[in-house]
Amino acid sequence: MAVGKIKIPAMPAIAGVRLSSVEAGIRYSGRDDLVLVEFAEGTSVAGCFTCNLYKAAPVIVCQNHLALAQSRYLLINSGNANACTGEQGLDDAKKSCDWLAGQAGVAPETVLPFSTGVIGMPMNMPALEKAIPAAYSKLDARNWESVAKAIMTTDTFPKMVTREINIDGVKVCINGIAKGAGMIRPDMATMLAYVVTDANVTTEHLQKVCSLATDKSFNRVTVDGDTSTNDAVILAATGKAEMPIIHSMETEAGRLFTNTVVEVFQELAQLLVRDGEGATKFVTITVDGGVGTDDCLKVAYSIAHSPLVKTAMFASDPNWGRLVAAIGRAGVASLDVSRVRVWLDDQLVVENAGIAPGYREELGQQVFDQPEFTIRVDLGMGKSSESVWTCDLTHEYISINADYRS
Amino acid sequence: MAVGKIKIPAMPAIAGVRLSSVEAGIRYSGRDDLVLVEFAEGTSVAGCFTCNLYKAAPVIVCQNHLALAQSRYLLINSGNANACTGEQGLDDAKKSCDWLAGQAGVAPETVLPFSTGVIGMPMNMPALEKAIPAAYSKLDARNWESVAKAIMTTDTFPKMVTREINIDGVKVCINGIAKGAGMIRPDMATMLAYVVTDANVTTEHLQKVCSLATDKSFNRVTVDGDTSTNDAVILAATGKAEMPIIHSMETEAGRLFTNTVVEVFQELAQLLVRDGEGATKFVTITVDGGVGTDDCLKVAYSIAHSPLVKTAMFASDPNWGRLVAAIGRAGVASLDVSRVRVWLDDQLVVENAGIAPGYREELGQQVFDQPEFTIRVDLGMGKSSESVWTCDLTHEYISINADYRS
Repeated sequence: MAVGKIKIPAMPAIAGVRLSSVEAGIRYSGRDDLVLVEFAEGTSVAGCFTCNLYKAAPVIVCQNHLALAQSRYLLINSGNANACTGEQGLDDAKKSCDWLAGQAGVAPETVLPFSTGVIGMPMNMPALEKAIPAAYSKLDARNWESVAKAIMTTDTFPKMVTREINIDGVKVCINGIAKGAGMIRPDMATMLAYVVTDANVTTEHLQKVCSLATDKSFNRVTVDGDTSTNDAVILAATGKAEMPIIHSMETEAGRLFTNTVVEVFQELAQLLVRDGEGATKFVTITVDGGVGTDDCLKVAYSIAHSPLVKTAMFASDPNWGRLVAAIGRAGVASLDVSRVRVWLDDQLVVENAGIAPGYREELGQQVFDQPEFTIRVDLGMGKSSESVWTCDLTHEYISINADYRS
Repeated sequence: MAVGKIKIPAMPAIAGVRLSSVEAGIRYSGRDDLVLVEFAEGTSVAGCFTCNLYKAAPVIVCQNHLALAQSRYLLINSGNANACTGEQGLDDAKKSCDWLAGQAGVAPETVLPFSTGVIGMPMNMPALEKAIPAAYSKLDARNWESVAKAIMTTDTFPKMVTREINIDGVKVCINGIAKGAGMIRPDMATMLAYVVTDANVTTEHLQKVCSLATDKSFNRVTVDGDTSTNDAVILAATGKAEMPIIHSMETEAGRLFTNTVVEVFQELAQLLVRDGEGATKFVTITVDGGVGTDDCLKVAYSIAHSPLVKTAMFASDPNWGRLVAAIGRAGVASLDVSRVRVWLDDQLVVENAGIAPGYREELGQQVFDQPEFTIRVDLGMGKSSESVWTCDLTHEYISINADYRS
């Protein structure tokens, strides 16, 4: 039950990348649940990971391997998060890298492992071991859609975005896929995203672009305020496009590349919210007029995480009283509520700590009746502005999360 | 649908206090919605109020009046919060004090106004004006239960607690009532509580007891993480019990009085959670081993506010993976997850960042099958300990809050 029209684009092959998915039977049956991605030698790879202190075993191994060697393979399973599994979990994550490395004839440090699913269960290692040769043999440049489907857990559709840009006369492609429906919030959560391009970019610069784009996208969406132990975003550039190497954002090529990566990241992040567990509304919350980013984000998340605001969205009830209550408790100590203004789309609702003179309930109702709208707040203090994207809190969310393990 | 057995105690009269409730028709019909409480001259009155920056008009007036004069009357309406109503709201709150003051022949500053209900709607002043004389004429020492019912909004039962203690051979009574079902969290939220005793206590000391007890009770409960614009707690001591005046916690009488007030506040606060909107579980979250209070509360609230944890409670699913995810993202930077231990009642579940060797799913299941249980976390860092009380997140919560205004 996604919000809005979801496009499943045809994803072009990207030179230097092959992918595959297989049914390993790790937890699910009757669907693919193991993914392999291969990068050509010389590919730059960057990553951003969960800030949760309980990092899952694959996240720990992944960050280690990323620092040690140039990555050649991503090994991703759905159904089991291999999180909170202690030493055994770490051994299992390493062993899976060893198996793939043996199969592919590379060093284990060139393999990055990823897992998503239930926390606290030991991995089904025999199933994994058996499936790796099959996955390796199926590698193909055209498997984007099956891979996007195989990484899903409670997702209702695969998240796929593709862009083609022209850098100095050279065609460059960027493909991105992601998974994750609940447990989404800043600092990333039960979400995995893989964005791959044939652009030629230094590893050092690619990491900067990855961090910047993550901050503007996956760290600006929230479904339920929960963050997971397994979040990871990977940005890889194979360098197969015949273009001068990008090493900064100061050039025209550098700016175009960064902006397009941010776009792809944002579109993927918004697809996560559109597929938020049980979501029926897709809401942009924009907070202007803060002294700094921090003011804006505090207010935006106070609104976006309020169960009362989120149930009002679900009910299509323009209950702006719940909005001001959320603004007032956001923790912006210097806020002068008499200067705060609140809009629902273009309708001014609140000013001077009361209802705006021209506002009528029907106007707010029209806005909230839509499946997508914007709540905008001007704090009247400074020049900072931030947007976050969220969804409503629904019966379906409760059902999904009350039943997930059973 | 309250959690646990709810007692409606017989509330004794307290010397120096008369109460009344009437059907004013402010918003509800067929039930009382306006309450008047009268204190004898010489009563000490203390209060604690919402930290929301959008303070409702009655809260602003109430805080002013409390600072200006010795309070004689509480005027409380349910159905309309008179919040976010700008200058008009302030004028209305003051006018209601004027009307009552005229009726009772006291100064307007001796009247404290309180409102709870929908935000952003103008008060029905004609209804209020008409009802005040009726409320005044009905004042009686025996009206505790009808008053406790008249302040309810989405509450399913009136919250009433009474204690009798013996101070130096003198019998002292403490009666408390409260309302508030959702929008409950630290810093108080859509909750009103009134605790009255015939003990003899200085106003200055009573404020200290009120602040301490509020911090240990109403600021330690959470239903949905939302805080309202109208929260208020009043503690009044008429001094009619013939006892030496209490002016510190250093004496035996002072300690006994404070401890009993804290007990009454905590029992009222827990009743709010037991009546949390849609609640089916009452859960105590205790966090030991923090370096300071702040560590413990961050972790406790991260668990208590997690929609994933709260839906797992609703499903009676001992999904401890969601607990560790909430602990790990709580923002305690110095946390070493390998030292953290987690118990469900007496069952050790997590240690060494993994599942405890003796834990089996059936043991956790037995705990989560109960309507009341404790989640205990030891951070393994220091000696601080804090408890908060919360409930689960249910379909009924969504229904109540999606339908409240319509």
